[in-house]
Amino acid sequence: MAPRDPEAKKKQLLEAALAEFAEFGIAGARIDRLAKRAGCSAGLVYTYFGGKDELFEAVFDHVVVRAVSTLPIDARDLPGYAGALFDGQVAYPEVMRLAAWHRLESEGRGGIAAIREADLAKVAAIREAQEAGVVSSRFSAEHLLMLVINTASMWSVQTEEIAGLSDDDHARRRGVVVEAVRVLVAP
Amino acid sequence: MAPRDPEAKKKQLLEAALAEFAEFGIAGARIDRLAKRAGCSAGLVYTYFGGKDELFEAVFDHVVVRAVSTLPIDARDLPGYAGALFDGQVAYPEVMRLAAWHRLESEGRGGIAAIREADLAKVAAIREAQEAGVVSSRFSAEHLLMLVINTASMWSVQTEEIAGLSDDDHARRRGVVVEAVRVLVAP
Repeated sequence: MAPRDPEAKKKQLLEAALAEFAEFGIAGARIDRLAKRAGCSAGLVYTYFGGKDELFEAVFDHVVVRAVSTLPIDARDLPGYAGALFDGQVAYPEVMRLAAWHRLESEGRGGIAAIREADLAKVAAIREAQEAGVVSSRFSAEHLLMLVINTASMWSVQTEEIAGLSDDDHARRRGVVVEAVRVLVAP
Repeated sequence: MAPRDPEAKKKQLLEAALAEFAEFGIAGARIDRLAKRAGCSAGLVYTYFGGKDELFEAVFDHVVVRAVSTLPIDARDLPGYAGALFDGQVAYPEVMRLAAWHRLESEGRGGIAAIREADLAKVAAIREAQEAGVVSSRFSAEHLLMLVINTASMWSVQTEEIAGLSDDDHARRRGVVVEAVRVLVAP
């Protein structure tokens, strides 16, 4: 039986799939379980998305592209940008898990074009700030963007042993991220 | 039939399991496939290790503890230490993949005691270097160790889109890691 509101049902399915993939990854996710979470049949998932791989890509595109595009970069305030990135990762840990699964299970597929484009726009903004002398030219604009993102995601991407070295609250961790980026980009 | 040299066979099994887990993770790994890689029966894996989870922990303990303990820290030369960490990660990418699977699939189990202990010894060495004034006291010793390890692993832990921003060879990437750590730890 087709749902009365297909768009609403698709959205419910994407949300259920996000939770399922964040927890179990691509190989570990089960279509029947996530369909049940969304209150529909497994058959409907195949009708809408084709299969598990296609569903993962739909979820990934949806959340990662949204996350990347809704946080505008201020290349003249990279420490502040890193702090905002950190806040977003703490607020939506399932997006970071999704990205980690994607890295492990889809390696070598070249990544998602929309993300690469958004990153290139950020690199251009950083290069401008370098030319204006407000950001260090010690690193290339590409490497600076990498360093900023990598520093902001420290607590999300490192192992429990590393991330648990210091028993900090959110404000203290955010302070370390912002200060490290300040040091890295100081002209 | 019991193998003639059980220790040699166990080692072969650990190597085969490392390759299998690095590729597929815990949920995706298959005992029959890795037993075949090691040239033995699936039954022998259960006899030696109990089950898949126990086998993963044996492999993880084996390679990660070895990796952590064979790279001595020189707290007075943290940029050099970061460069050596980076070299190790490039030489043994399967160890980084194993750590990433472990983080995703064993979250909340508290991590491995031997690794935490090795990390605490490194923190103590950094604190000494801070007290001697050769390393910045802008960050706590714990945060500095995190920043050093996180910066060294930038190309291993970030997504393809981020890691592919700049088309560098090994020497150039290593140079960025070493220089970033130099800036972060400068007194």
